Amino acid sequence: MFVRNQMPEPIRGVLAPVVTPFRADLSPDRQRFIRHCQWLLSHNCGLAVFGTNSEANSMSAEERMALLDALVAAGIDPSRMMPGTGCCSITETVELTAHAVKHGCAGVLMLPPFYYKNVSEEGLYRYFSEVVQRVGDTRLKIYLYHIPPVAIVGITPKMVERLLTAYPTAIAGMKDSSGDWNNTKTFLDAFVVRTARAAHTARAARTFDVFVGSESFLLANMRNGGAGTISATANVNPAAIHKLYKEWNTADDTDQQQSKLNVVREVFGNRRFPSMIAALKQAIAIYANDPEWTRVRPPLVELTAGEAKLLAADLKAIDFAMPGIDCSRGR
Amino acid sequence: MFVRNQMPEPIRGVLAPVVTPFRADLSPDRQRFIRHCQWLLSHNCGLAVFGTNSEANSMSAEERMALLDALVAAGIDPSRMMPGTGCCSITETVELTAHAVKHGCAGVLMLPPFYYKNVSEEGLYRYFSEVVQRVGDTRLKIYLYHIPPVAIVGITPKMVERLLTAYPTAIAGMKDSSGDWNNTKTFLDAFVVRTARAAHTARAARTFDVFVGSESFLLANMRNGGAGTISATANVNPAAIHKLYKEWNTADDTDQQQSKLNVVREVFGNRRFPSMIAALKQAIAIYANDPEWTRVRPPLVELTAGEAKLLAADLKAIDFAMPGIDCSRGR
Repeated sequence: MFVRNQMPEPIRGVLAPVVTPFRADLSPDRQRFIRHCQWLLSHNCGLAVFGTNSEANSMSAEERMALLDALVAAGIDPSRMMPGTGCCSITETVELTAHAVKHGCAGVLMLPPFYYKNVSEEGLYRYFSEVVQRVGDTRLKIYLYHIPPVAIVGITPKMVERLLTAYPTAIAGMKDSSGDWNNTKTFLDAFVVRTARAAHTARAARTFDVFVGSESFLLANMRNGGAGTISATANVNPAAIHKLYKEWNTADDTDQQQSKLNVVREVFGNRRFPSMIAALKQAIAIYANDPEWTRVRPPLVELTAGEAKLLAADLKAIDFAMPGIDCSRGR
Repeated sequence: MFVRNQMPEPIRGVLAPVVTPFRADLSPDRQRFIRHCQWLLSHNCGLAVFGTNSEANSMSAEERMALLDALVAAGIDPSRMMPGTGCCSITETVELTAHAVKHGCAGVLMLPPFYYKNVSEEGLYRYFSEVVQRVGDTRLKIYLYHIPPVAIVGITPKMVERLLTAYPTAIAGMKDSSGDWNNTKTFLDAFVVRTARAAHTARAARTFDVFVGSESFLLANMRNGGAGTISATANVNPAAIHKLYKEWNTADDTDQQQSKLNVVREVFGNRRFPSMIAALKQAIAIYANDPEWTRVRPPLVELTAGEAKLLAADLKAIDFAMPGIDCSRGR
């Protein structure tokens, strides 16, 4: 009676909101994008393409779809992908979501519509509900994206409750980028423990997977029933993050591993940098020896020469490495 | 030597961020949209289509362009239009802006990119700069849209200063929806008075027009060198707002007129309603006797039956009328 057993395994573990390289004319650089995705996959890192750190909202819907087409055409496995598809309009969100589902992506990471603020729970519910119904595909797996520092509009436990009740198979989980462990814990306790219990007693056919938006909460998340992390720094430090994900309940040094991950993250989160996105791209430029990687689309700005030096020095000081990334160089 | 004399007169006065009617399937209702625009024009109200109150960000770029095409095809004068074209991505903003310029629109109202928060002034400058250069059309007239309660990302005097210096003819003005008169006054003093003085001494060929985002500041704006108002309630009360605009420095009862406008606005701004947008649409539904008008796109919600009754009663109590609006009924 378990429908889940007839479905593909849900995507779990470590995913990167893949940073998007741009050419001098600011158009997405497909070849570098493909190569970075391949590098991430080679380190067991899934592809949450078109996330906040991907500058997805700085691209048009067409540009995002063309990039996804290019990844699939390059032979990259869609079952390792969770593209971001949440826009301000139902029409664009449905278009991007249907496109991702059609490609066989494991799921989609969906922002709430983020233009209007202080919208009602009923309005947000109708939005997601309309998207599920319009996509109308049993393969649809939505991961709700809670990132209040950026989107301002957030996802509440009550919203998850309503959506899970109405669409138990389409609502697959969430990413919590609140940066507030207590908030993550609330969702874990409310939905993961309960759905796991229900699944155990065969009363439900689904789970609700909670990803933390930063690997600094990875160990805590795994210890409390979480599914992994979708984290910006997975773009540069995928192997070490995946190691902790894999060993969280078997290794003896998990607290030490977590501490080391935090040290790397702190380097990129330095408030002297204009954004973590620009710092991540600068690091790839450094380690791949490929300055093309530094570009961001406005309104973001790249690191100054001084900031780039600081980042390089800070990374050197912690013996940071990105094994194999230099294959990103050249065409 | 005045370039301005060779250019069409800038659009000024009262403009409505035209509310967008939706069909039962939530697709934009072109015929009702055209009729409402015609009604507004018949009351001397310009068309700031695709504004915040138009639910523009709840529509795709394609839907917005198709609606503008429909207005022009219906014979509506583009020199009376100031479409909203600011999206989160440069690519979409350029596409929408170029489309509006090509149609001969008087100007475009441009939101800053509003996904990323706390972005640098340099990043925002580069964004607008890139848009101006990519559109690359001398007819381009940008009105910067400052609406911090919704977009969070705002327009500062320093940003206007930089953009005006770099693009003196493309940067035509702004809409201030901060709701803070002191902020509007800062912009008026910094740019309007100065540019007017410069124009007087033939040192500059341009003006910088400041529109207030609410008619409650119309009289104050006009008394301080402003250009008019782009206001939600112009959707339902255009004639009275235009009367004050026209007579602000000649009539004896301007303060009384302003007070009356404020009374109408207060009815629509009632915090018991889910949004002013829904209340405006409900009022059109009531006065045009056309319930089709009540629909909004999620995440917004329409008024409940009780709220609709309250609105009707409040409007009746102030003898509110929308002369000629009932022609909106039928096809």
